Amino acid sequence: MEPDSFLSFVPEIREIEDRYYKYFISLENFDSIPSWKKEAGCICVSRPTNPTGNVITDQELEFLIERANNVGIPLLVDNAYGFPFPNVVFGKNSFIHRSGMIQGFSLSKLGLPGVRTGFVVGDSETITLLHRANSVINLTSANPGQFIALDLFRSGRWKELCEKIILPFYLKKSIFTQEAILNNWSSQIDYKIHQSEGAFFLWVWVRNLSLSVSDLYPILKEAGVIVVPGKTFFPGTDSNWSHREECFRLSFAREDKEIEEGVLKIGKVLEKFLK
Amino acid sequence: MEPDSFLSFVPEIREIEDRYYKYFISLENFDSIPSWKKEAGCICVSRPTNPTGNVITDQELEFLIERANNVGIPLLVDNAYGFPFPNVVFGKNSFIHRSGMIQGFSLSKLGLPGVRTGFVVGDSETITLLHRANSVINLTSANPGQFIALDLFRSGRWKELCEKIILPFYLKKSIFTQEAILNNWSSQIDYKIHQSEGAFFLWVWVRNLSLSVSDLYPILKEAGVIVVPGKTFFPGTDSNWSHREECFRLSFAREDKEIEEGVLKIGKVLEKFLK
Repeated sequence: MEPDSFLSFVPEIREIEDRYYKYFISLENFDSIPSWKKEAGCICVSRPTNPTGNVITDQELEFLIERANNVGIPLLVDNAYGFPFPNVVFGKNSFIHRSGMIQGFSLSKLGLPGVRTGFVVGDSETITLLHRANSVINLTSANPGQFIALDLFRSGRWKELCEKIILPFYLKKSIFTQEAILNNWSSQIDYKIHQSEGAFFLWVWVRNLSLSVSDLYPILKEAGVIVVPGKTFFPGTDSNWSHREECFRLSFAREDKEIEEGVLKIGKVLEKFLK
Repeated sequence: MEPDSFLSFVPEIREIEDRYYKYFISLENFDSIPSWKKEAGCICVSRPTNPTGNVITDQELEFLIERANNVGIPLLVDNAYGFPFPNVVFGKNSFIHRSGMIQGFSLSKLGLPGVRTGFVVGDSETITLLHRANSVINLTSANPGQFIALDLFRSGRWKELCEKIILPFYLKKSIFTQEAILNNWSSQIDYKIHQSEGAFFLWVWVRNLSLSVSDLYPILKEAGVIVVPGKTFFPGTDSNWSHREECFRLSFAREDKEIEEGVLKIGKVLEKFLK
């Protein structure tokens, strides 16, 4: 893909209490850059969003549907962490499908990453095109996952698995990780956690450090902990926007003990680089 | 990949009896284009070769090993149809491995295309590099095939499967297809079949037609038979070489009745376009 393939709209940031915040789609920004209506081929969103764990609200989704429809382009929604499975969504939003949408689903987060199986829901014209492209792009698609999925969905067991096992597991992990941060990081550190609404990671925003998150990455690695620097998650935004270098993604898909150890290590490194 | 990534050496063509021929690596051509020694990063060959079903001899392979070693670049051998499995090799050549070689193997032709599993044999430095690249290129590799393969190889059943089922099946198919051609095509057609030494297809060379094979493709399709025009299988050769447009690949991995029907249809179309 070309380096300038993406255009992003800077979100609205709302701070929530002392240590939390949440991104919202800035309705104004959509109208302030009129060129996208001519140039864009697709509007894309992941829900829950990777890397933030933000789940755009039903209302925000309806807004995107309307904007895409007005311009006559598809709205592509990546549901890999979300509706209706694995359904690792902690709030009260819902699955919405309308004509003109292309929705991607994956079995990877249902506990089957190694079967490399997913599927797409969209208008029949879109599916016909994808079907044709697939034999060229993939030569042969992996098929054991299709057999497992057929059984999983026919029997209805997928629903129980999502509701009773997967969602509670990650909700507990998320809460555990947030508490590990809140209880252990120095109050000197000017950090905020993105409201955790789904997926398997936290998104942390740290200001007033003497180094960028990218520069902290090798130092954290040396200290024995790997985070994903935020910079790479902002395609199509102004590279001067300092926020890009103040965020990182923190996975909570590990043993509690390991998460706690990692959180403590990160806290100690951040403390060293306070301005 | 860039359009000019490949450099090919035009082979030596030896005609065998009336209706057969075979490509050989032209040892002279390797020396007539000295620039490859500076520019090439790798020598590549598939054995049996796709699309011809040619199996380069042990002697030819040793020649390539020596040339790659001299220049200090790897020799990449794709064994997807060959040694030691699925072992769809009809002649008497052998599997050879030497330091500096990178050999690719696939479970696809062992009856497991849908598990998307293969492996690579090479020097430990090469494997370390591939191992590192793999997590970025593939994110998660498909793994059900790895479990099936482990059992298949530990138990030794793969060998019996190749020798007693897969190889005899395709050898019979190859002979059947050759006979269908020899018995049914008009003697007016100036065709030769590449000596069938392995893999699941025949490579047919037809001269003195009023149309190129690429132009015959839609006509054959209309007549109800699909062949793969040869043109696409000659990357890096002079596009004026008329041989490119005189060859096509003919799969024999179908029911006998269907193969016979296809062969008859092709023969009738070729007859129509005799010069």
